[in-house]
Amino acid sequence: MRRGAAVTSFQPRHIGTWGSDRSAMLARVGVGSLDELMEAALPAGLTREALDGLPGGRSEQDVLERLSDLAAKNTVRISMIGQGYYDTVTPAVIRRNILENPSWYTAYTPYQPEISQGRLEALVNFQTMVSDLTGMDIANSSMLDEATAVAEAMLLACRVARSRTRVLIAEDVFDATRAVVETRAGALGIELTESDFSQIDDDVAAVILQYPGASGHLPELSELEAITARAHASGALVVVAADLLSLSLLASPGSWGADLVAGSTQRFGVPMAGGGPHAGYLAVKDAHKRQLPGRLVGVSKDADGAVAYRLALQTREQHIRREKATSNICTAQVLLAVMASTYAVYHGPDGLRRIAERVHDHAVSLAERLARAGVPVTSTSFFDTVELEIPDGADRALRHLLAENITGWRVDESTIRLSCDEKTTGEVIDRVVRALEASGTEADKTGIDAGFPSSLERRDDYLTHPTFHRYRTETLLMRYLKALADKDYALDRGMIPLGSCTMKLNSAIEMSPITWPGFAFIHPFAPATDRLGYLELIEDLETWLAAVTCYDAVSLQPNAGSQGELAGLLAIRGYHRSRGDTERTVCLIPASAHGTNAASAVLAGFRVVVVGTGPDGSVSLTDLDAKISEYEDQLGAIMITYPSTHGIYEDSVGEVCARVHAAGGQVYIDGANLNALVGVARPGDFGGDVSHLNLHKTFAIPHGGGGPGVGPVAAQSHLVPFLPSHPMTDNSVIGSASAITPGAGAVSQAPYGSAGILPISYAYILLMGGEGLMTATQSAVLAANYVAAKVDKVLPVLYRGPGGLVGHECIIDLRPLREETGITVDDVAKRLIDYGFHAPTMSFPVAGTLMIEPTESEDLGEIDRLCDALLKIHDEARSVYEGTWPQDDNPLVNAPHTAASALVGEWSHPYSRAVAVYPALAEDVLDDPAQLAAAAAGKYWPPVRRIDGPFGDRNLVCSCPPIESCR
Amino acid sequence: MRRGAAVTSFQPRHIGTWGSDRSAMLARVGVGSLDELMEAALPAGLTREALDGLPGGRSEQDVLERLSDLAAKNTVRISMIGQGYYDTVTPAVIRRNILENPSWYTAYTPYQPEISQGRLEALVNFQTMVSDLTGMDIANSSMLDEATAVAEAMLLACRVARSRTRVLIAEDVFDATRAVVETRAGALGIELTESDFSQIDDDVAAVILQYPGASGHLPELSELEAITARAHASGALVVVAADLLSLSLLASPGSWGADLVAGSTQRFGVPMAGGGPHAGYLAVKDAHKRQLPGRLVGVSKDADGAVAYRLALQTREQHIRREKATSNICTAQVLLAVMASTYAVYHGPDGLRRIAERVHDHAVSLAERLARAGVPVTSTSFFDTVELEIPDGADRALRHLLAENITGWRVDESTIRLSCDEKTTGEVIDRVVRALEASGTEADKTGIDAGFPSSLERRDDYLTHPTFHRYRTETLLMRYLKALADKDYALDRGMIPLGSCTMKLNSAIEMSPITWPGFAFIHPFAPATDRLGYLELIEDLETWLAAVTCYDAVSLQPNAGSQGELAGLLAIRGYHRSRGDTERTVCLIPASAHGTNAASAVLAGFRVVVVGTGPDGSVSLTDLDAKISEYEDQLGAIMITYPSTHGIYEDSVGEVCARVHAAGGQVYIDGANLNALVGVARPGDFGGDVSHLNLHKTFAIPHGGGGPGVGPVAAQSHLVPFLPSHPMTDNSVIGSASAITPGAGAVSQAPYGSAGILPISYAYILLMGGEGLMTATQSAVLAANYVAAKVDKVLPVLYRGPGGLVGHECIIDLRPLREETGITVDDVAKRLIDYGFHAPTMSFPVAGTLMIEPTESEDLGEIDRLCDALLKIHDEARSVYEGTWPQDDNPLVNAPHTAASALVGEWSHPYSRAVAVYPALAEDVLDDPAQLAAAAAGKYWPPVRRIDGPFGDRNLVCSCPPIESCR
Repeated sequence: MRRGAAVTSFQPRHIGTWGSDRSAMLARVGVGSLDELMEAALPAGLTREALDGLPGGRSEQDVLERLSDLAAKNTVRISMIGQGYYDTVTPAVIRRNILENPSWYTAYTPYQPEISQGRLEALVNFQTMVSDLTGMDIANSSMLDEATAVAEAMLLACRVARSRTRVLIAEDVFDATRAVVETRAGALGIELTESDFSQIDDDVAAVILQYPGASGHLPELSELEAITARAHASGALVVVAADLLSLSLLASPGSWGADLVAGSTQRFGVPMAGGGPHAGYLAVKDAHKRQLPGRLVGVSKDADGAVAYRLALQTREQHIRREKATSNICTAQVLLAVMASTYAVYHGPDGLRRIAERVHDHAVSLAERLARAGVPVTSTSFFDTVELEIPDGADRALRHLLAENITGWRVDESTIRLSCDEKTTGEVIDRVVRALEASGTEADKTGIDAGFPSSLERRDDYLTHPTFHRYRTETLLMRYLKALADKDYALDRGMIPLGSCTMKLNSAIEMSPITWPGFAFIHPFAPATDRLGYLELIEDLETWLAAVTCYDAVSLQPNAGSQGELAGLLAIRGYHRSRGDTERTVCLIPASAHGTNAASAVLAGFRVVVVGTGPDGSVSLTDLDAKISEYEDQLGAIMITYPSTHGIYEDSVGEVCARVHAAGGQVYIDGANLNALVGVARPGDFGGDVSHLNLHKTFAIPHGGGGPGVGPVAAQSHLVPFLPSHPMTDNSVIGSASAITPGAGAVSQAPYGSAGILPISYAYILLMGGEGLMTATQSAVLAANYVAAKVDKVLPVLYRGPGGLVGHECIIDLRPLREETGITVDDVAKRLIDYGFHAPTMSFPVAGTLMIEPTESEDLGEIDRLCDALLKIHDEARSVYEGTWPQDDNPLVNAPHTAASALVGEWSHPYSRAVAVYPALAEDVLDDPAQLAAAAAGKYWPPVRRIDGPFGDRNLVCSCPPIESCR
Repeated sequence: MRRGAAVTSFQPRHIGTWGSDRSAMLARVGVGSLDELMEAALPAGLTREALDGLPGGRSEQDVLERLSDLAAKNTVRISMIGQGYYDTVTPAVIRRNILENPSWYTAYTPYQPEISQGRLEALVNFQTMVSDLTGMDIANSSMLDEATAVAEAMLLACRVARSRTRVLIAEDVFDATRAVVETRAGALGIELTESDFSQIDDDVAAVILQYPGASGHLPELSELEAITARAHASGALVVVAADLLSLSLLASPGSWGADLVAGSTQRFGVPMAGGGPHAGYLAVKDAHKRQLPGRLVGVSKDADGAVAYRLALQTREQHIRREKATSNICTAQVLLAVMASTYAVYHGPDGLRRIAERVHDHAVSLAERLARAGVPVTSTSFFDTVELEIPDGADRALRHLLAENITGWRVDESTIRLSCDEKTTGEVIDRVVRALEASGTEADKTGIDAGFPSSLERRDDYLTHPTFHRYRTETLLMRYLKALADKDYALDRGMIPLGSCTMKLNSAIEMSPITWPGFAFIHPFAPATDRLGYLELIEDLETWLAAVTCYDAVSLQPNAGSQGELAGLLAIRGYHRSRGDTERTVCLIPASAHGTNAASAVLAGFRVVVVGTGPDGSVSLTDLDAKISEYEDQLGAIMITYPSTHGIYEDSVGEVCARVHAAGGQVYIDGANLNALVGVARPGDFGGDVSHLNLHKTFAIPHGGGGPGVGPVAAQSHLVPFLPSHPMTDNSVIGSASAITPGAGAVSQAPYGSAGILPISYAYILLMGGEGLMTATQSAVLAANYVAAKVDKVLPVLYRGPGGLVGHECIIDLRPLREETGITVDDVAKRLIDYGFHAPTMSFPVAGTLMIEPTESEDLGEIDRLCDALLKIHDEARSVYEGTWPQDDNPLVNAPHTAASALVGEWSHPYSRAVAVYPALAEDVLDDPAQLAAAAAGKYWPPVRRIDGPFGDRNLVCSCPPIESCR
């Protein structure tokens, strides 16, 4: 008789080190247990166990059932709500081979371009798609959503216009867009005015219009041209929010004078997902290309002159520009941008045009049939959205539509809008007519001629590059996607030990729910009763995240860490203002902070003042005191990261918080490193007033090759009234702590940001439970300390905290190596590719260093493999120093080595082909073909050699290169 | 105003050649249109358009919705039915990375082992798992299901026992198993008797028992040992049907004397899926290893001596043994075997034991609590299944259980069985008790002590190989699966031009529904009212397949082509017998037929007589007449393939059918080549009485690396009464043509075979529509004729049909090349790997040839790439002939080349490294590093060099090799 078998637990699947492996690591670090490790590593006074309010761990099966119940509480209907979110058909080949494929979703931002050529190519396709359709010269690789893209366009225009501080915005833009633009303008003192553009004064920096309008309306071309002419005459830039699908039929904004075009690519095959994630876009005229915020992929060449892609103009990134930053966008929406661009690749210009025509035809049919039924159609010139006057009331009409399983958009008590999309069929139009014909009146039964003016018909070609014509069958597209994925290195190949980025397991079970219809096919503005599952999930998640951090409330609206920072800083500003402290606009930021911190502070209207750090990397209390006394009543906030960006648990964190509080400032604790705190200490306990978290770091949302991220903001009760709000939130349904207050303003287009991927973090927390989360934190700290212990003798660990220990990451200093051997951190990073690794974080926070974060998910074998590679690379560098290999011809400076470059032609290097590409293999293995086969199998082959970044920046090309240059 | 945009169509996504490409191909073939092509290729008199009864093509969106509706008509409940099918948790990492990953599911049977090492390793894991758990010496790589595995074991025992023709079977075996065993025994005149084994006479070939029994019962070890001792004493073999999960707790059958162990691996993470597909298993003592039917993976070595896997003892395959075959199993269930073995790899022995313990504990709790509630528990010694006597009736009890959303198994009017499984929880047991406690009586409220005898406790270790201990975290398993997949070549890399195998697109949309709970989580014996979606889908599919073939009815029960053949031939035998024609047991089979044809005929009790073929490959009418007159009243059937296995539309097919009919024989038309007929001609029109189809060839079910297949059998009305039946079919619900009749017997364990993958073919037919299917056929024929036209001058096409045209495939004759240059078909096949191709079918149906089937899904670019590779290989062979390269050292005999072998060490071959691995690249590309990078990217690298098959057969090892030999 047997008893007592335990439920299958997920923790041992997520955490990589158990049993004898863990013991060996603890021994190497010199501590007896995980608890002892944390006891030693954490400063006295920080809470040591912080599991209150967290659920117990549950099995895969239980969690799937719970999420399935939640999905069932959402109601999937035929959405005709529109307003920036449209139903769309995700081709199954795209869903399966991108969205459900770890080779795509577990990849990191393509900072190491040699091992990211696949997604970089997909992003160049994205940029080409956007610039072609908008008629602009250049487009970046994705914004967070349409509303923030428009806001960024406005800020760009204001930068260009310098002293001008007024912006005019059309009445007919999406409410959500206006809300975000208002928030962002307000933070920087930009005066935003609604306008019909009949007069544009010369203090106006920009005019913002939407094309087609939120009402669906499309004016005559001459009207648009008149506006742009007036704007340009007065020196203002024209910002157009444009629907990308409509542009396959309509004259491009570029053709009628737009300077900046922004929008969403959601309806290119990306599900509505309760509001996100989707890729926004921003395209500009050539004159403004160096002002473009966000990431830009450019064409360059590798060491052999082969075409190669990489992020262009990287000097614009926030971590470089810091307080001079003009935008805080960092992680964007790469995975969704890849999906959208692949949708365009698969359909091609003809396919897109066919889809758009069908959408438009249905809208025309809808308008004409309703008009014949006597329902007054307000707008007769439109692409996909029809506005209706309902004599007997909008609510009644919406009820009738609901009876047909259709949701529409209520404008006011007598006006509704209905938007057609890719899924609209004739049967849907029949249903609409059936629902609304009773609202018609005999008197209004006048036929109309709906459509859009022929002046607006698009006459130029787009998507003419072969890439948009070549992959028309599923077989071809499947192979193209596989070929692209094969070029890239993601977590499914091996470790990505990126400090500060927490590349841990994104488990398949966590990823499963996001493609279920109950989560994927929900419009963010659907009636709250159709979103009960989302609302319940959000409430649970907010509660758990509040428990993790010891804050009073959490807002899930920010759809990236950068937006979380902005929201948190805006909350601090709002708080000070509400108390009349309008002068508290100084934000102290340590020298070692992530660049995005300073950028967000600037965008929140703060003045950044840098606080020095001591030799051990911690905030200098002396300089802190000096800055506090220097700025006195201007002190608004301090923004620190904990554990610090140096990867250590600073001893003085409590003291820093206390001194800032004493001086009347608020404490912002950046949650980027929360993976070192969950379950063992809480920012709200040790002095934080507000923090943002990174669900894509700490809570298992995959990085997706550079997004999506989710950056919830968590705050103490006094800041809660200043957390994000949203015009489209139905507060009455939400029982959560963060019930969004009316005054704080929106930071994202959707009220709950990227709601569609919240099930991932929800599943993660529920699978791990409080205990599991704590063990994960401890295991992550153990792994980092093990690496530190193993490599320190030859590659010194730069900073250590209490007990001589590091936190969840460690910085190894390569500057001595460079001084001695001339081998740079770049050489080491590229050589790691030959060893089969993604490099650690390079030169952040200190130039010339590598920051390694193994995370809790890696096993000892892989961690040892990394340490061995680093030590062997150190030996290789010594060989250069010793003259065995010349400075300019050795496996480090020549790294990475492609198969082709090692195989084809004469070999003239002073090291062997085998050393070039199989550096980790021992000589006896290389000498024994029988052993070699197994040892060499699974080698990751980079597709290009080292890429020349500056060449690409000097010759900036950001769309698909001519085919003859590629293959 | 725009109008008339068409619905997005799937046909251009599935078919690879359109527009100018198609025109160019037609021109090359010398015809003006697809219709003209078919007019010329097909013999006069065959119907030219055959779309009656087929649906119109529908969009991806429509088809998803239709399938979603069907899934919703199935009811997912807590299944406690058991009887061979159990609910199980498929770890999400396995579902996503195997079942939903085209790298696994679009692979072919590993006949080319150098490019199949990944799945071969997974299958060696499978064999190790089975042999370890059963305690046997050797296991094969999967059977079609438990019932056929037991039947095959019986046949094996009868072969070993030679003259003995009696088999004893226990009463306590699954009904479905008994039914299939009866069918198979009956066909071969084996006398099957139910027995308690108290006496085993010496005319008994085998005894069959089940462990645990169908009732759940487990006897004392001594009882089992006594049976095996009696059997062995009388010279009979002991066949045990065993539940693999239970064996992690129970003494293995091998330990108490079993000779052959068979069963299912379904509950190792493979969903019930309405009955299949699942991998069956068969394991034997060493003495019988060369008698093992089905595929067996063995360890061997490559040209460098490295460990390499390949199919062992291939000479046993049906295409070699033909009428001497002892089994017709061919395609099995590789994809499901990979899933099941990976489940064991992921859980390891400890995890499996924990799962089994939990299942057992719940069953014990169920029995004890019900006994306490006064419900009479019949069996108190069990693993997972409890049998109950229900005083107030089984039906009432089942109704009460249903009210708790639980289904159980009805044995008779007062007996039910309930089986626990991996998903059973304490809450489920609570529900059962709640449902049944009212059936208890005060008198029966006696506690029991349930469990199983301690004599049966397993005491030996299993799964001790490191592979079952190494991949315990999801990260490690994900990477292991990726590494395995990376070794293999599947359709996601490029063309697999296998003649007769139809490796066409398996689209993601077709694959999507199979993992939906509404299809995946349905027990095949659930009440018919819970399977209405399946039944409706099956009825539609039967109707469409009947329309495609012009037969009166279709049975979807056969879960492989081989089983379809068997069922069809059994129908013919049944028909003859019913008319008193008991002597009609001769089956004519052309010399060129697929080996499985003859094997199936033998197993159906026919005597195979070979009919000669003429020089053009078609059936010799002269010899046909001779054989007809020779066998006269013994003529039972002829079995032909159309188009023939030579890939041509034989002119005389009508005549062949007519002559056989005239002589009283039935005509079996093998549907293996139906991809050349769908929509253009129908076997039922031109003389067929019965056919099987291959849904995994013609109707888009993926090959899965060697299964699953589905082989429906279709027949004219006079044969319908003799199509498969099944004891567990509730005919009353099925309205279809094939309503299963009581008398014909079961050929598969589940009434509708592999119901779970039927949605794939359903989706395919509905997406394509009749017109699309016809165009697909035409396009496939065009592609084959284009290849024939392009390569014929240097690589002669062996057979041609009417109009000098081939059908959907063409055979190129490499015998002249061999005679001239010594280069074999094997060399060409292996060299194609260096060019990035899977070889065409080798030496079938004619030794020394390659049979190429491009299918309709490949695009012109890929087809040209193949032709160019073949022509270039021909040139390479000429270089050998001309002496440029020696006979024993040239890129052909050394093919394939691994990266390691080309990179490491000195290069001593008379051709360059570049020629070895990049043979398709032009010299100017090789000389230009900038061009080379793009051209070389995406290269498929085989993980091993040429494999020595005979070495492995001489040193047969079929389980995981010692780790030191591998890496």
